[in-house]
Amino acid sequence: MKIHAHPLDPITAAEITRAASILREHVRGSKVHFKVVDLIEAPKALVLAWVDGRVKTVDRKARVYYHVEGSQHLGKAQVNITQGRVESAVLLPDAQGPVDYLEWEKVHEACNTHPMVLEEVSKLNLPAEAKVVNDPWSYGTDDAKERRRLFQCYMYIVLNDDPEANHYSIPAPFAPVFDAHTLELLWIDRLPLGVGAEIDETQPWEPVAPVEYSASILGGEYFRKDLKPLLVEQPNGPSFQVQGRNVSWQKWNFQLGWNVREGPVLHNVSYDGRSLFYRVSMSEMTVPYGDPRTPFHRKQAFDLGDSGFGLTSNTLTLGCDCLGHIRYFDGYRTSGDGTPVLMANVVCMHEVDQGIGWKHTNFRNGRSSVVRDRQLVVQCTATVANYEYILAFILDQAANLHVEVKATGIVSTMPVAKGVQTPWGSVVAPGVMAVNHQHLFNVRVDPALDGHKNSIIHEDCVPVASDPDLDPFGCAFTVEGTTITKAGGYDLDVAASRTFKIINPNVINSVSGKSVGYKLHAVPSQMMMMGRHTFNYKRGIFASKPIWVTKYRDDELWAAGEFTNQSREDTGLAIWANRDDNVENEDVVLWYTFGVTHVTRPEDFPIMPCEKMSVTLKPSHFFELNPSNDVPRSSQQANRSTLDEGMDAPLPAATKDETASGQKCCVSVPRL
Amino acid sequence: MKIHAHPLDPITAAEITRAASILREHVRGSKVHFKVVDLIEAPKALVLAWVDGRVKTVDRKARVYYHVEGSQHLGKAQVNITQGRVESAVLLPDAQGPVDYLEWEKVHEACNTHPMVLEEVSKLNLPAEAKVVNDPWSYGTDDAKERRRLFQCYMYIVLNDDPEANHYSIPAPFAPVFDAHTLELLWIDRLPLGVGAEIDETQPWEPVAPVEYSASILGGEYFRKDLKPLLVEQPNGPSFQVQGRNVSWQKWNFQLGWNVREGPVLHNVSYDGRSLFYRVSMSEMTVPYGDPRTPFHRKQAFDLGDSGFGLTSNTLTLGCDCLGHIRYFDGYRTSGDGTPVLMANVVCMHEVDQGIGWKHTNFRNGRSSVVRDRQLVVQCTATVANYEYILAFILDQAANLHVEVKATGIVSTMPVAKGVQTPWGSVVAPGVMAVNHQHLFNVRVDPALDGHKNSIIHEDCVPVASDPDLDPFGCAFTVEGTTITKAGGYDLDVAASRTFKIINPNVINSVSGKSVGYKLHAVPSQMMMMGRHTFNYKRGIFASKPIWVTKYRDDELWAAGEFTNQSREDTGLAIWANRDDNVENEDVVLWYTFGVTHVTRPEDFPIMPCEKMSVTLKPSHFFELNPSNDVPRSSQQANRSTLDEGMDAPLPAATKDETASGQKCCVSVPRL
Repeated sequence: MKIHAHPLDPITAAEITRAASILREHVRGSKVHFKVVDLIEAPKALVLAWVDGRVKTVDRKARVYYHVEGSQHLGKAQVNITQGRVESAVLLPDAQGPVDYLEWEKVHEACNTHPMVLEEVSKLNLPAEAKVVNDPWSYGTDDAKERRRLFQCYMYIVLNDDPEANHYSIPAPFAPVFDAHTLELLWIDRLPLGVGAEIDETQPWEPVAPVEYSASILGGEYFRKDLKPLLVEQPNGPSFQVQGRNVSWQKWNFQLGWNVREGPVLHNVSYDGRSLFYRVSMSEMTVPYGDPRTPFHRKQAFDLGDSGFGLTSNTLTLGCDCLGHIRYFDGYRTSGDGTPVLMANVVCMHEVDQGIGWKHTNFRNGRSSVVRDRQLVVQCTATVANYEYILAFILDQAANLHVEVKATGIVSTMPVAKGVQTPWGSVVAPGVMAVNHQHLFNVRVDPALDGHKNSIIHEDCVPVASDPDLDPFGCAFTVEGTTITKAGGYDLDVAASRTFKIINPNVINSVSGKSVGYKLHAVPSQMMMMGRHTFNYKRGIFASKPIWVTKYRDDELWAAGEFTNQSREDTGLAIWANRDDNVENEDVVLWYTFGVTHVTRPEDFPIMPCEKMSVTLKPSHFFELNPSNDVPRSSQQANRSTLDEGMDAPLPAATKDETASGQKCCVSVPRL
Repeated sequence: MKIHAHPLDPITAAEITRAASILREHVRGSKVHFKVVDLIEAPKALVLAWVDGRVKTVDRKARVYYHVEGSQHLGKAQVNITQGRVESAVLLPDAQGPVDYLEWEKVHEACNTHPMVLEEVSKLNLPAEAKVVNDPWSYGTDDAKERRRLFQCYMYIVLNDDPEANHYSIPAPFAPVFDAHTLELLWIDRLPLGVGAEIDETQPWEPVAPVEYSASILGGEYFRKDLKPLLVEQPNGPSFQVQGRNVSWQKWNFQLGWNVREGPVLHNVSYDGRSLFYRVSMSEMTVPYGDPRTPFHRKQAFDLGDSGFGLTSNTLTLGCDCLGHIRYFDGYRTSGDGTPVLMANVVCMHEVDQGIGWKHTNFRNGRSSVVRDRQLVVQCTATVANYEYILAFILDQAANLHVEVKATGIVSTMPVAKGVQTPWGSVVAPGVMAVNHQHLFNVRVDPALDGHKNSIIHEDCVPVASDPDLDPFGCAFTVEGTTITKAGGYDLDVAASRTFKIINPNVINSVSGKSVGYKLHAVPSQMMMMGRHTFNYKRGIFASKPIWVTKYRDDELWAAGEFTNQSREDTGLAIWANRDDNVENEDVVLWYTFGVTHVTRPEDFPIMPCEKMSVTLKPSHFFELNPSNDVPRSSQQANRSTLDEGMDAPLPAATKDETASGQKCCVSVPRL
């Protein structure tokens, strides 16, 4: 069995096999359906002891979600792979595990073949070549007593054999609901086609041309012809080094974790040998839809907890997703029978040039110094049925860490009657409506700035109350710092340019005399709109405030709690941030909720141009000067740019004094 | 004389010469000091008539700012270059023109040589090799009666002959104030070194090592060695075409204007033959500092109106500022005697790859379509003494127009006593304080969406008031649109995800049934903090609200008015937005104020890593589908990425069915 190099390495194929057999052993006789077999990260104290060399080995443990045949209760076990025993195994009658591919396939099949569904389909009078497919959706809670495992199957019509035919452009007007355990059809919802919830008998389909994105359907003539190739060349290879899952790049070092729920995770992040963060991860996301018409009110996905950014990650292909010199990383998931499944190339890592990093020109002589903004991008693409999320952790040379999400893919579509406009969304294609919705993400930052005792403060920029002596002209403003002492949820304040900052109150910057820190460059966004009495809100309380602060506890990783599928309440931050924990100069965790309210537009169809959201962790009094002051200066010698013809004026010649360090080619024409 | 191709072409060298001689003629005998000779853009109606071919020629006119010898009054003339006559010439006793290089150099020289200044310098007991330099700053208004033309000279010590020695790291503790007309020294301000305004006699300088950025001072050993080259190759050249100042790229077309005040300006912007914007420009910026201690309260720059993004633009050098295939554009300014001065390569244009533009994977078969996000960047770098602004207009293939500003360069420094912390800023180096300040920019958007009669609306996302019948589960929200009918200033509202949108109410999207529009992706930021009674506020009322709407009038281009230098009030939006103009379905202008409150950090010194701010104009129901649906798909055949060694798993082979259009290499391993 492969020896893992680090206690936080992702689970291996052999470990999945072993964990599964240990559990099978434990349950005896009865057949087990495995949903998740993934790493349980060792307690922080133990990992740090291992890192310090105080302990030599750390047991590897697996979290196993499963069902035993006949039972409808979710099983959850903690399996000690190293010791070969089950440490705990419980049945959870009130929880639903995430979707797994096997059950998804069974529900999909059951829906596609059920006589009553076929009868409904037949009412559409589809042409002979037409096929019908369905996307089983997890079932947004609308009844606190519901304990069945439900899927609502949204159905679409496919008119073309092309593997990329866009069935989302032809939504069928009904949605069967299945029990995933019994595979019974419980009922068929007919979809409202007007403003209100009224429904009608299924009518024959009125032929309409789908809006396609498939290059082979569209044909060569469709495409613009004037885009010239742009290549990224790295003749000496990349600037990063990788050992196992340990990555070094430009003074950064981190351990690249991965799991089926979160996808890529950064552990033990340091810069220039100084500790920054113990763990940085995408923690959860919820997508409530604003359409009240049954059954659309049930659409509220938790795309990490219900399915998983790792589990749904694309196998990336060289040259399609990134330019330049690409490194790929794999992951493993379990199949239903407990055998490991390789998920090849689910994470890619490469460098990009992000334009000018900094520049100054001495106007007295025209001499310029410029550095480029080179970045390291660790990225995955999660495909959650119709929709894509591109998650990236981006490091730069100025010691900034960016967490970026791009929302793309195909908006969730439903049928709409011809000529009807509803208040719930936009018509994005003939007969197709895309409902307005919110994407509310939560990023979890477990800081370790020069150590594990940190504090969170917020700083407001406020005018000085008028004081004729101190401030005769009224221009003064100050920065008011407030240390957060109790766990809880906190608000941003644009009017005060409020900034939340992680500091280590025990370490002082020798230049500025202030505590070393990193600030969160938050982008204020609208929080969840649904009211406190709604299931949407109760299930996703993490999405009701942008900033959350908790005292660290092992296993508290996911903002909405462990089990979000058909959940009735938020069992994460709603609980953890409500403890009366002191968080000042403690092992503290900062959680940031951000997102976008997506008012749909035809321009989002068939595939939506990326909507980019990003948050930056930026050093603030952590370093004594610009950390990128030592980046070699940008020079033509290194960059080999080419000059476009038709110049209006000759270029100033580059000077010759090029040093090993920053070849200084940059001379402007003195202006004086 | 060079024939200009378009009425909005930048002023030519010959036109400057001609305008100057026409004015000299007009003023007769007396010697003229020319400050600005630049194009007066022809009235919109005339330009449109020329574009439509309804008129054949449009007179070229110059705006001339000047002083006649002996007079201290600013002269402002309108010179008809084509007709060879002065159409108007007035003296403006109450206005100050922008800084020009000649007067700047004279003040600089006067300060460096004045006996009383030298006497003050001598008190510093500087080492023999030390030099003293000064930056004459425009003088922020603190007296409504002041009519002299004042410069406050901030002084610095240079210890090194290196052309990039960082004198901002050794600020001298006094600042002489000069009259730019008489070149008299009016007084010398000694600078407070503590929290309060108390000042002291100038003391001998205590030697301190400056924080340097010059590669030759730092030496080769200082620099990181592990950054490998990253080259952008465009083997078939760029995707843009340029004729004169007309640029075509990926269905975009625009006329690239330029002037000394604004730098690059986009005129007549269209996409796929449809009109979008008549003019998009950076209109103004103000930088109030939050330090009340005399004389620092006088620091409030208007970097367009006081000096000019064009006038201070760097001459760019191949390979230093951009990668890939670069096209440069020149500009011209006047010298003091009216002869034109070439400003070579003040604007660069090139393409960049901004990562994934959109992606979708059909999870049923793993087939992916991906397009890259190729962008066209039109960029300049303005150096305003210590500070740099990198202004870019960025076009993409999804028909988004981004206006981006990067703030970089060297923060404004002042001396601070050892061990002192002030509430006004941070100590960024030994003995050096950088005051907290705001950068408040205003972007002007003159829309022409499918014509010149447009409206501005704002849309709020609001929950539906609970209604058990319509919305039994309380998830419903709607988009409330409000049309702006009167000119004025308007607020953003994060809590409602408020979006301001330009629409053409006369053109309906055939798919969605809604008016065609473009929305402004505003980033909410703190507005000017200084109170209504302050000069800071009165001079920059445009910075008190994020959104402004006015009815179009020729010559209303600059948010704070024409003359900002030592201004006493905002003569731009403060007036134009106060007219009781109807702006619904009119020729309307949208102004957007945004910025950052810069709380300084040691990491901003010696040169500050770019702080990026950007705003996007994004189509909303303007197109019938994703405008980038016809972008050729990303493929390894085109991108030629390279694979990093040490793969954990083999890559899935690319399929062979590559079409002329989007070579489809992207296949994921099916997961089911």
